[in-house]
Amino acid sequence: MYTENMKERLFETTRLEAFSDAVFAIIITIMVIEFHPPEGTEFHDLLPLVPKFLAYLLSFLYLAVYWNNHHHLLKAAPGINGSIMWANMGLLFCATLIPFGTAWVGENYHASAPTALYGVILLLNAVAYYILQSRITATMDKKSAFVRALGVDFKGKLSPVFYAAGIVLAFVSPLLAQLILVGVAIMWIVPDRRVEQALG
Amino acid sequence: MYTENMKERLFETTRLEAFSDAVFAIIITIMVIEFHPPEGTEFHDLLPLVPKFLAYLLSFLYLAVYWNNHHHLLKAAPGINGSIMWANMGLLFCATLIPFGTAWVGENYHASAPTALYGVILLLNAVAYYILQSRITATMDKKSAFVRALGVDFKGKLSPVFYAAGIVLAFVSPLLAQLILVGVAIMWIVPDRRVEQALG
Amino acid sequence: MYTENMKERLFETTRLEAFSDAVFAIIITIMVIEFHPPEGTEFHDLLPLVPKFLAYLLSFLYLAVYWNNHHHLLKAAPGINGSIMWANMGLLFCATLIPFGTAWVGENYHASAPTALYGVILLLNAVAYYILQSRITATMDKKSAFVRALGVDFKGKLSPVFYAAGIVLAFVSPLLAQLILVGVAIMWIVPDRRVEQALG
Amino acid sequence: MYTENMKERLFETTRLEAFSDAVFAIIITIMVIEFHPPEGTEFHDLLPLVPKFLAYLLSFLYLAVYWNNHHHLLKAAPGINGSIMWANMGLLFCATLIPFGTAWVGENYHASAPTALYGVILLLNAVAYYILQSRITATMDKKSAFVRALGVDFKGKLSPVFYAAGIVLAFVSPLLAQLILVGVAIMWIVPDRRVEQALG
Repeated sequence: MYTENMKERLFETTRLEAFSDAVFAIIITIMVIEFHPPEGTEFHDLLPLVPKFLAYLLSFLYLAVYWNNHHHLLKAAPGINGSIMWANMGLLFCATLIPFGTAWVGENYHASAPTALYGVILLLNAVAYYILQSRITATMDKKSAFVRALGVDFKGKLSPVFYAAGIVLAFVSPLLAQLILVGVAIMWIVPDRRVEQALG
Repeated sequence: MYTENMKERLFETTRLEAFSDAVFAIIITIMVIEFHPPEGTEFHDLLPLVPKFLAYLLSFLYLAVYWNNHHHLLKAAPGINGSIMWANMGLLFCATLIPFGTAWVGENYHASAPTALYGVILLLNAVAYYILQSRITATMDKKSAFVRALGVDFKGKLSPVFYAAGIVLAFVSPLLAQLILVGVAIMWIVPDRRVEQALG
Repeated sequence: MYTENMKERLFETTRLEAFSDAVFAIIITIMVIEFHPPEGTEFHDLLPLVPKFLAYLLSFLYLAVYWNNHHHLLKAAPGINGSIMWANMGLLFCATLIPFGTAWVGENYHASAPTALYGVILLLNAVAYYILQSRITATMDKKSAFVRALGVDFKGKLSPVFYAAGIVLAFVSPLLAQLILVGVAIMWIVPDRRVEQALG
Repeated sequence: MYTENMKERLFETTRLEAFSDAVFAIIITIMVIEFHPPEGTEFHDLLPLVPKFLAYLLSFLYLAVYWNNHHHLLKAAPGINGSIMWANMGLLFCATLIPFGTAWVGENYHASAPTALYGVILLLNAVAYYILQSRITATMDKKSAFVRALGVDFKGKLSPVFYAAGIVLAFVSPLLAQLILVGVAIMWIVPDRRVEQALG
C-alpha cells in the first residue's frame, strides 16, 4: 500500500504533464470530428447542428477548466509517484468519456437519459480530480499555502452537489439540468485567484 | 477583474505552448481524415476531391500562420496568467472550428453560405488572436521593441477588413470571396521580418 | 551492426519520450472515436455498448501500464541510439494495433478469433517491450540497481506465458481467455515498488 | 528574401520539434482509424485486410524514417528562422498526404494510379525534406562534420530516383513498383552510422 511518506522518492512532473496535455488536446479536438457538415448549402441547414455545437462548447469549457486546474495542481506538486500516476490515469480515463456523453446529449438534448449520463460523466471527472488532488497534497507540507488554500475549496465541494442535482433534475427537466451544468462551468471559469495567490 | 499589474505573478509559458502545439497539430491532421479515397482506381476519380484538397491546403496555410505567430508571441511573452490562459483557450476553440468550415466549403465551393461561414470562422480566429495578443502585451513593457513593432501591425489590422469583405462578397461571388481569403493567407506567409527583428 | 559499446555516443531521451507520449495519448483517445452514441435515448440503449466499453477499459489499462513502464525505463536510460529508436518504433507500431483488436473483440466478445487476436496483439507488445528494454539495458552498467532489479523481472517473464495461455484458451472459452488477460493487466497495475526503489 | 546570413538571429528548435512530433505521431495513428474490424468473427475474415495492413506497415516505416532523420537534422541545427519554419511546414503538409495515399493503395493494390500516387506522395516528401535540410545547412558552417557528411548523402540522392522509377513502373506492374518503394524504406532503416558519427 501507498504510504504518505514525505521522504519517498518523487519523479519530476514533466512527462506526466506532457502526456496529459496530449490527451486533453486530443479529447477536445476529437469532438470536432463529430461535426459533419450538413447536406444543404444554406445557413438554415446549420440549424439542426446548434444543439450539438452548444454541447461541444460546454464540453470544451469543462476540458479547458480541467486543463487549467491540472496545470496549477501539477505546478504546485513537488513531484509524482506511482499513486499519483495512476490517479492521473483515472482522471484521463474519465475525461475520455466526455466526447461520448457530448455526442449523445448533443443529438438528444430534449431527452433525460443523455442529459443524466452527461452529468454522471462530469461527476466521475470531479471525483477523479479530487482523488488526484488528494494524492498530490499527500506528498506536500500540510501547512503550505497551496494545501491550506484547497482547504476552503468551495468550488470543488459545491460542484459534485450541483452535478448530482443535475443528474436528478434531468428526469424532471433536461433543460433545467443542462442549465445547472452550464452554471458550474461558468463558476469555474471565473478566475481562481485564491490558488494563483497561494502560488504567487 | 484582471488588472494590468506588471508585478503580478506570471507562470512560465512551456506547458501552454505544448498544449497549444498539440491542439494545432491535431486540428491540421484531423482535416486529413475527411479525405476518403475515391471508389474508382483511376486518376480522374481524384478530380472531385480537388476542391476539398484546395480547401485543406488553404486551412493548412492559415493554421501554419497561426502557429508561427503564436510561436513568436509566446516567445516574447514574459509569462502567462489566468487571463492569458483563457484568451489562448478562446483562440484554440476558434481554431477547432476550422476543420468544420473547411469540410463544408470544400464540398460546396460554389455556394455562398459555406464560403461566408469559412470567412466568419477566420474572422473569429483573428479576433481571438487579437485578444490573446492584447492580454500578453498588457504584461509587457509598453516601450519594448515587440510592443512597438505591433503598434504598426498593418497585417493584423488589414486582415479583419479583408475577412469582412470576403464574407459580404461570398453572397455575390463565392469564388471572388475565396480569392480574397487566399490573398490574406499569402500576405501572412511573406515573412514578418519586423517581429523577427524586434526579437533579434 | 549495432555493438554494445558503452562508449558509443548516446542522444538525450527527451524527444523520443515526447514522440512516444503523443503516440500513446492518441492511441488511447482514438479508441473513444469508435464509441458512437446509440440511436435510442434510454439508458437501456447503452446496454449493447457495455462489452465495447469493457474492452476499451481493458485496453486503456494496458496502454496506461505500458506508458508507466516506458516512463520508468526511459528515465533509467542513460541515452538513446539508433537501435533503441527503432526498438521504440517497434513498440509503438505494436501499440497502434491495440485499437483494432479492441474494436473487433468489443463487438464480438463471444467469439474465439477476435479474443485470440487480442491476445496475439498483447503478446506482440510484450515482445516489443522486451526488445526495447534489452536495447536500453545493453547501454547500461550490468551492475546497476535497475538492471539487477529487472533480472528478477517476474511480471515481465510471466506475462507472455499468460498471453499464450489466453490465446490457446480463446478457442475453448473466450470468456476464460478474457479473464486471464484482465488478470495480467491487474498484476501490472499493482505498483512495481521494486523498480521505483532501484531508481530511488 | 531570405539571405544566408550566419549572423542572423536564430530561435531555439524545441517548439518546432514538439509541434512536428505531434504531427508525425497523429499521422501515424490516424492511419489506424481506417482499419475497421471485419463483419465476420473468423480469422479468414481478416484476409481482405492484409493489403491494407501491409500498406499501413510501409507508411509507418516511412514516417518512422522521417521522424528519425528529422530528429538528427534538428539536433544538428544551430537554430531555426522563418525560412526553416516554413520548410518544416512544407514537409509536414506532404507527410499529412501519406494517410490518403496509404488508404487508396491499400484498397487497390492491384491498380496503377493508386500505386503511382503513393510514389508521387513519397517523392513530394523527399523533395520537402531536401528543402528543409538545405535551409538548415544554410545556417551551418560549411566545414562542419554534419554538412560534409550530407555531401556524400547517397541515400538522399538515390531515393528520388527510385521513387520516380516506382511511379513509372506502376503503370507496367503495380507490384514491382511497390517492391521498389519497400526497398527504399529498407535502405533507410539500415542505420545511418555516417550521420550518427558526425554528431558523435
